[in-house]
Amino acid sequence: MPTQFDPPSGTRDFLARDWEFRERTFDAIRSVFARYGFEPLVTPSFERLDVLLGKYGDDGDKLIFKILRRGEHEGTGEADLALRYDHTVPLARVAAAYGSQLPTPYKRYAMGLVWRADRPGRGRYREFTQCDVDTLGTSSAMADAEIICAVHDVLAELGLAGFRFLLNSRRVLAGMLAGFSVPAGLGPAVLITLDKLDKLTPAEVSAELTGRGLPADRAASLVGALTAHNADEQVRDAVKSTEEGAAGIEELDALLSLLKDQIPGDRVAFTPRLVRGLSYYTGPIWEVMAEGGAGSLAGGGRYDHLIAQLGGPDVPATGGSLGIERILMLLPDAGIAYPRLDVAVTVMDERYAPRSFSFAAAARSAGLRASVYLGSSGKLGRQLKWASDQGARWALIYGSAEDEASAVTVRDMTSGEQASVPLKDLPGYLANLGS
Amino acid sequence: MPTQFDPPSGTRDFLARDWEFRERTFDAIRSVFARYGFEPLVTPSFERLDVLLGKYGDDGDKLIFKILRRGEHEGTGEADLALRYDHTVPLARVAAAYGSQLPTPYKRYAMGLVWRADRPGRGRYREFTQCDVDTLGTSSAMADAEIICAVHDVLAELGLAGFRFLLNSRRVLAGMLAGFSVPAGLGPAVLITLDKLDKLTPAEVSAELTGRGLPADRAASLVGALTAHNADEQVRDAVKSTEEGAAGIEELDALLSLLKDQIPGDRVAFTPRLVRGLSYYTGPIWEVMAEGGAGSLAGGGRYDHLIAQLGGPDVPATGGSLGIERILMLLPDAGIAYPRLDVAVTVMDERYAPRSFSFAAAARSAGLRASVYLGSSGKLGRQLKWASDQGARWALIYGSAEDEASAVTVRDMTSGEQASVPLKDLPGYLANLGS
Repeated sequence: MPTQFDPPSGTRDFLARDWEFRERTFDAIRSVFARYGFEPLVTPSFERLDVLLGKYGDDGDKLIFKILRRGEHEGTGEADLALRYDHTVPLARVAAAYGSQLPTPYKRYAMGLVWRADRPGRGRYREFTQCDVDTLGTSSAMADAEIICAVHDVLAELGLAGFRFLLNSRRVLAGMLAGFSVPAGLGPAVLITLDKLDKLTPAEVSAELTGRGLPADRAASLVGALTAHNADEQVRDAVKSTEEGAAGIEELDALLSLLKDQIPGDRVAFTPRLVRGLSYYTGPIWEVMAEGGAGSLAGGGRYDHLIAQLGGPDVPATGGSLGIERILMLLPDAGIAYPRLDVAVTVMDERYAPRSFSFAAAARSAGLRASVYLGSSGKLGRQLKWASDQGARWALIYGSAEDEASAVTVRDMTSGEQASVPLKDLPGYLANLGS
Repeated sequence: MPTQFDPPSGTRDFLARDWEFRERTFDAIRSVFARYGFEPLVTPSFERLDVLLGKYGDDGDKLIFKILRRGEHEGTGEADLALRYDHTVPLARVAAAYGSQLPTPYKRYAMGLVWRADRPGRGRYREFTQCDVDTLGTSSAMADAEIICAVHDVLAELGLAGFRFLLNSRRVLAGMLAGFSVPAGLGPAVLITLDKLDKLTPAEVSAELTGRGLPADRAASLVGALTAHNADEQVRDAVKSTEEGAAGIEELDALLSLLKDQIPGDRVAFTPRLVRGLSYYTGPIWEVMAEGGAGSLAGGGRYDHLIAQLGGPDVPATGGSLGIERILMLLPDAGIAYPRLDVAVTVMDERYAPRSFSFAAAARSAGLRASVYLGSSGKLGRQLKWASDQGARWALIYGSAEDEASAVTVRDMTSGEQASVPLKDLPGYLANLGS
């Protein structure tokens, strides 16, 4: 049950352990992208409302979080800003704003929060991290291949296995529609239905195609070709006589030959039934499926005129998006306790506080994480319990006996062994622990 | 002049170079906090509106960015969420929500964006990063000292010099008001006026105090004591006979003795005229002044009942806040070009594209950042210009001559020297460059 102290619906508080798990994952992703020469871009959390409205379709517009005008106009109840909905519209704005200051091509990644007023559910949040990688300004198939390789390396580096890249091309799809004599006007509707082949049976998809106006025999042969065990060959054969189709196949083969030595052969396959819902793709498209039907981990493709449609310059573009939240759910959680400290310093008596405080500082100088006990108990057992809760590997104890002997007791928290270290030797002793 | 492509007023786009400068700084700060055993806490970007409203005073409420209700209620123009305004109210909510799951004491830092609908100006943004470090659940002066030391270490580690900690205590201020016989009802107003001693002359402050109803002689002696060269001694003397004042001095001296060996003596001083505007402080207060009047870099203090007032449990608390945006402005900007690549791989002919693509992959395997040329020019000069623009240290060239010789030309982009490396030796050669 939500309480008044819970975070807003669809959002999460990240305490230390969960946050560091996310950050370690994000760092690994950033480092793969950097290795490919992609650079970070970070845009504001909100954009002017008119920059976002109308860019995501009617359904998307409804999911945009709008921000009320402030100042004297507050009373109007009008919104003038909106929370970032994705990283693509801000990319288009940045491409328009900084054109000549950006390198050509512009290879950038964006990893940051986006907000959508969706109904929250398992793995679906209103505030979540989205990670995009895109290259603007080149038509080269190498740019497509580079994105796919970078995404592959990210997934491999995170330790995921058993994932597969499904590969297709919008131009092959266009050739296929022509090859199977689908009337031009029916094309988009037919693709929308074919996109359901991973959810519906072939018979259901055929029926839906017929319902959309495609003659039953053509629907059956189209669905038959796409679901055959040798679908790739059948489709290659059907499209080669069409201009778009032949060009699409050539494009795909160029891409496959670039990927050949970089991605294990069983991890990438031409998949003619891959449509990807979004209408803006213009060339190669791809999707990464997780093992065992856990869904799509990433997807992308070439979208040569979208940046212009979104208000940016008309540049060729290709990119991909990682399903970060889903990927995080598939990763093995380290599962261990969160260790906050290396060295815990007891404070047995207020008189020794400055001394204990200095011990902690000396430990930090040695590169160790260290803190003094800040509670009110003077009991050693209580303070050692705290040290253990912090995950400390060593406790430094300094009471009256130690004061008399001018030495610190260093306790190994795992073995329980204790050593008496003369005060003057402590920095060296700590430096040794820290190295 | 703002254009339609600029980010919204008061916000910024961070291109790669600026962003990496910020991130390096943030990483350095995080690592100091971690060394002290502070752990990260990350809360959502927005909270329910009622969680924030009324927590920042009337002026604060006006600066809160409110988010419109979504879904069927959109038409009402009502707001139900609001962007995070600081990190303290979310901390109070988290302390209430996760109480027993949090360690005691709870030492956390928060570094993240906050949003305020302020009038934008030089160094003042509507979206900016705020960095807080706080310890909940202990009254120990060591907790206050730890915060101050951590902030000191952050500033020192960032390479700042010439900054000074001004230190005072709310209890000393209370004792001072009593010691100078300020009527109890005038106390808060007198403190507000005394807080202006860094902007107004002593005579102006005295006049304002008199205007507020303090007899002229008392105003003059109070201002005289606070601005004297031995203000600390005069105030110690004036407050020692009052209960609050004596307790405050004792508290301050305990704090100073903890700091003595950790912070150079010229960097911290009891400063009786330090008030800090916010009314919620209950014990030691402090502020870090930059050299040459560049303003305050950080500030904080003990606020023992604030967490309860903000809706959390009633725990003692102490903390501080870094003025990140101001600190960033004072740091020397690296000033160098942003190098995106170590290795740039030319593509002299489409036929060699898969080979060039593999060279880049081999360089990445050697831990180098590498990319192929993605443009359309087949001219070497043009491709080397691109390599140079990327900041690459080496270019790999593979044209028909290299193809015939089964070797790659490796060009040192700084010296212009070139080496011919047989294909089979390339991985080893690159591994050598990368090490």
